Amino acid sequence: MQPEVNGADDFLASAMVSQSPLTPDADAFLKEREASASYDVERVPLASLPNWHLGDRLSRADGKFFTIEGLSVRTDFGPVPHWYQPIINQPEIGILGIIVKRFDGVLHFLMQAKMEPGNTAFVQYAATVQATQSNYQRVHGGRATPYLEYFLEGTRRRVLFDQLLSEHGFWYLYKRNRNIIVEVPEDEDVPVHEDFTWLTLGQLRHQLLLGNRVNMNARTVLSGIAYGVADGDRPSYAGQADGFHAELVKSHRTPTSADDLSSTLTWLFDQKAKFSLDVRRTSLRDMDEWICDDDSIRHRDGRIFDIIGMSVQATSREVGTWWQPMLEPRPGNAVALICQRRAGVLQFLLQATIQPGLTDRLELGPTIQFSPGYHRGPEDHPPLTEYLDAPESWIRLDAIQSEDGGRFSKADTRHLVVELPEDHEIEAPDNYRWMTLGLLGRLTHFGYHVNVEARSLAACLL
Amino acid sequence: MQPEVNGADDFLASAMVSQSPLTPDADAFLKEREASASYDVERVPLASLPNWHLGDRLSRADGKFFTIEGLSVRTDFGPVPHWYQPIINQPEIGILGIIVKRFDGVLHFLMQAKMEPGNTAFVQYAATVQATQSNYQRVHGGRATPYLEYFLEGTRRRVLFDQLLSEHGFWYLYKRNRNIIVEVPEDEDVPVHEDFTWLTLGQLRHQLLLGNRVNMNARTVLSGIAYGVADGDRPSYAGQADGFHAELVKSHRTPTSADDLSSTLTWLFDQKAKFSLDVRRTSLRDMDEWICDDDSIRHRDGRIFDIIGMSVQATSREVGTWWQPMLEPRPGNAVALICQRRAGVLQFLLQATIQPGLTDRLELGPTIQFSPGYHRGPEDHPPLTEYLDAPESWIRLDAIQSEDGGRFSKADTRHLVVELPEDHEIEAPDNYRWMTLGLLGRLTHFGYHVNVEARSLAACLL
Repeated sequence: MQPEVNGADDFLASAMVSQSPLTPDADAFLKEREASASYDVERVPLASLPNWHLGDRLSRADGKFFTIEGLSVRTDFGPVPHWYQPIINQPEIGILGIIVKRFDGVLHFLMQAKMEPGNTAFVQYAATVQATQSNYQRVHGGRATPYLEYFLEGTRRRVLFDQLLSEHGFWYLYKRNRNIIVEVPEDEDVPVHEDFTWLTLGQLRHQLLLGNRVNMNARTVLSGIAYGVADGDRPSYAGQADGFHAELVKSHRTPTSADDLSSTLTWLFDQKAKFSLDVRRTSLRDMDEWICDDDSIRHRDGRIFDIIGMSVQATSREVGTWWQPMLEPRPGNAVALICQRRAGVLQFLLQATIQPGLTDRLELGPTIQFSPGYHRGPEDHPPLTEYLDAPESWIRLDAIQSEDGGRFSKADTRHLVVELPEDHEIEAPDNYRWMTLGLLGRLTHFGYHVNVEARSLAACLL
Repeated sequence: MQPEVNGADDFLASAMVSQSPLTPDADAFLKEREASASYDVERVPLASLPNWHLGDRLSRADGKFFTIEGLSVRTDFGPVPHWYQPIINQPEIGILGIIVKRFDGVLHFLMQAKMEPGNTAFVQYAATVQATQSNYQRVHGGRATPYLEYFLEGTRRRVLFDQLLSEHGFWYLYKRNRNIIVEVPEDEDVPVHEDFTWLTLGQLRHQLLLGNRVNMNARTVLSGIAYGVADGDRPSYAGQADGFHAELVKSHRTPTSADDLSSTLTWLFDQKAKFSLDVRRTSLRDMDEWICDDDSIRHRDGRIFDIIGMSVQATSREVGTWWQPMLEPRPGNAVALICQRRAGVLQFLLQATIQPGLTDRLELGPTIQFSPGYHRGPEDHPPLTEYLDAPESWIRLDAIQSEDGGRFSKADTRHLVVELPEDHEIEAPDNYRWMTLGLLGRLTHFGYHVNVEARSLAACLL
């Protein structure tokens, strides 16, 4: 029993449906929405952002939205024992929610074509609701968030998934969002607003494999989907999958024994206890090696990332024009999951990894989490980075996905899944562990155990 | 299935055994150990603590053990929107572990008679191992921690419970400890060192009800014990309980449906998202209303708590003499759980509550968590405080228990369990919720959902 997992079979059934009369052409819908509005995003000096002030931190005069603060980080994880960095602080818990509803017996997901100024591909499929508390309390004086009422306390909802999950731990300080999937009854009439459409999970899978079509917030919610355990008594949709997808479904549905789960948790707590992390906020002005001026906040060697200013004009968002700081990483970020068929089932190699902004200090990340800007050179690269150049025939997924385009600029991350031949031997340090997708899903459902980079990849493995 | 709960029936069976030949007199053992060593604990000025320095924070020259730091707290939970306070910062994850082993078929707990300088009752039953990382890496150059090997990665162990759980959220910043119970096989010879003895859970229950006999660290580990769900096919020890204890066992063993659990989690996430909390570390010198001088760190009105210096001489601890700062609360702290038979089963009223040092911001606490030092007067008291003066006939437990006597001085907390008559109506705000002990146990097993005050009470309800 996974009490917090509902709808497992229904999700799998929907994953097998790649066409729907409700959205005959999911590509076209996105293009059409993109064409219907205009966007003008421009980099501007930080000093020119109205209402924002750069002092010990970068913040709005009214204290709203978020701040950029300095961080001093000490850890015995990885090669660098101490560093400074800016980080985004937005302590409120946002809602990332998807409404699902059954049409002709098949679960459909109400997705929004949403513009985010930081994304390379401006308009992507987003969750039904993607709202910070400031958003839904309407700090910016904009329009109300549609569909929010389906996710609020006290309203009628069948919750299929509900968990607080971490956000990007190098870029956000202690940021959590609530990831929710709610099902509304078949007979309930849900209005479909202009930017919204119903997609099956099969359609979403296709968009995910193409890359830059499903935004980060939607991916983290989708990573909460479990296909449950294979059960002879119930109709099996798994038989409809083929090739690598069949292997994925099998890995999702392989039963996890109580002992597997318990020994994995014990290993994970060992990792959490093994490494130290001390994080202190400092003034932006006190960060060694960083330059703060009217233009931007940046590392003196051009490494790590920049905090820049953006002016945004759009016709399809809550407010038409706004200015905000954004975090722009060095290009070339990549995340990769290495998998291998072990005892007949596809297992994935996860890495227990410290990130300064994680609420629980250490979570499971992808096998490889590579940000060229963080390293002085190849001698600094994390273990297994060489598998980013795996032979073409081992690559099962290779797609660019965006990070949260509301805070991050041009943050395109290559998502890679590499399947090792069964006879290929790989040596990984102690903080790496093999697991099925089913076990990984169980850990995701516990809360703060699987980081957003791993979840983003997991969403591509539905 | 609760995959992370093992040994449920064995625990219940052990709870019914109130005598054991291995420790014929649990009271006498404690007295004897106390008499065998001498302790001299004396309050000294902070400035006189060797190796400790009071500046922006209070810390050791070598950076070891822990620091006392200033905190600025802003929240919309409770009547005070902003305050300063000192807090203990010790970012490492300690191990609180109990070894259990079957003798004549009955689980026994290997408990240590342990002196802690801050406790009013110096020597109490502690977990088998209670070790900070500094301890077990022997920062203080003392003796090795006995039995630690049973809890370390890579050793043979059957883990019955293993979870990271929060510590006191007003006094510790983001402190988590690993709470573990491991079972060793019946045929494995476990040496019993001088201060150690084997107790059944029934014996421990008796010590818990007496008060000030089982220390906080042992109580939090014991709170991980689940009795599991009643199952007609298995032998039931529940029938052996009588009176109020039978009601407790029933409340533990009442099945929690998937819907109960899921709606409770959703309610809890609602609470976590509803309230804001922003915590910043500041210099001790910058705390409004606080005085830092050579003597102590204290509130100018004598409220909240003091940070004082202690000199400790003992013959039964890792090192014989040491000096350290301690947090000494105002006297009169109390925690209470209100319960009531509802639909035939005892339910407990838990309060979702913000504490500045909690890793996850908000957890479930007791119905009443009352610290007179925190309030200016009765008009400030938290809801339901009047039930601390409930009629005698409603009181099911009234015992003083200590907080962690390694960091807190004279921190005696009255533990109260009040059973309301079935026809008594009580009105609680939205952030309170009724639940069985079984459901509360499930939430404890998730990790950061139940605070240490509630767990301490739960340990008294085994």
